[in-house]
Amino acid sequence: MQKFDINIEAVLMTPDPNSFVTASLESIEVDLGGIPNDRHYGLLRCADVRQKFYPKGTLIANRRQLTVVSVEECAEIAARLGVPKILPEWLGANMLISGYPDLTLLPQGARFIFTSGAGLICEGDNPPCLGPGKIIEAFYVQPELKARFVAEADNRRGIVCSVECPGIITNKQKAQILIP
Amino acid sequence: MQKFDINIEAVLMTPDPNSFVTASLESIEVDLGGIPNDRHYGLLRCADVRQKFYPKGTLIANRRQLTVVSVEECAEIAARLGVPKILPEWLGANMLISGYPDLTLLPQGARFIFTSGAGLICEGDNPPCLGPGKIIEAFYVQPELKARFVAEADNRRGIVCSVECPGIITNKQKAQILIP
Repeated sequence: MQKFDINIEAVLMTPDPNSFVTASLESIEVDLGGIPNDRHYGLLRCADVRQKFYPKGTLIANRRQLTVVSVEECAEIAARLGVPKILPEWLGANMLISGYPDLTLLPQGARFIFTSGAGLICEGDNPPCLGPGKIIEAFYVQPELKARFVAEADNRRGIVCSVECPGIITNKQKAQILIP
Repeated sequence: MQKFDINIEAVLMTPDPNSFVTASLESIEVDLGGIPNDRHYGLLRCADVRQKFYPKGTLIANRRQLTVVSVEECAEIAARLGVPKILPEWLGANMLISGYPDLTLLPQGARFIFTSGAGLICEGDNPPCLGPGKIIEAFYVQPELKARFVAEADNRRGIVCSVECPGIITNKQKAQILIP
């Protein structure tokens, strides 16, 4: 088992089911369905284009409860797009970490363990789509950014996680990544 | 995505919380907690020696809902132990498959998709312990089999799964393994 110390730079959520743009909070409390009141909260979710082996809309276990991105990868995306910054809010992130390079390559089954005892499991990378690209394009008023985001954020857009152990995740804390 | 056709040779469960020896049924119906009334059923389970990063007994997401073994690997364990057969019942298996070599090496995140639409996710291999060894030793009345099972079943004892999509799993059917 490999262990890495990381920093929790921000925790975020959105209660708005019509927008994936998140907002920063002091802390979030997670249970087995994710972050209560967040738009991705739930034990179940509808199968979509990512799970083509189920009919679209089939209720399946929700393994995409939280989105995690890193300071380092957001900076790398920004550099590649030639813009000053990419905010975790625009990516719909629920957690921003620093101190772990190549977060997006973290293997499925890796864990985040927090000082409260809470724990998340990595469910794999989160392939970039046009949604965040539209937000970035609108902010910088550069019409080509939407499509360029999808290309430049590939393998840098972070991961999705589900909750293994309920508890509180507070910003500006240390945490650990465990890789089996 | 790689696809493999497999055969469901048996489905099994045990309602007895004091014994992990399972018994064969015509079909099982799974929900998000596993097989209702099975001893491993539940959305939550207590952290144990496998999850040392949580205090023992902490309630965590139950990712060890079903145990899957294969005809090929059971035969290989039997051959290595020098016994005529190893029954899936003795391993506490909930499903016996055939047609896929090296089941135990199936990567975490691989899926079983059934004709009913039900789906399981592989949560990784199931390291052998003394429990099934005791059953095998008692059956064959050979005192050294318990410890030998732990050694010879390493990387051949099958996997654990959790339910992604509820539904019915019937024995003597075809199914598919999908590897991302």
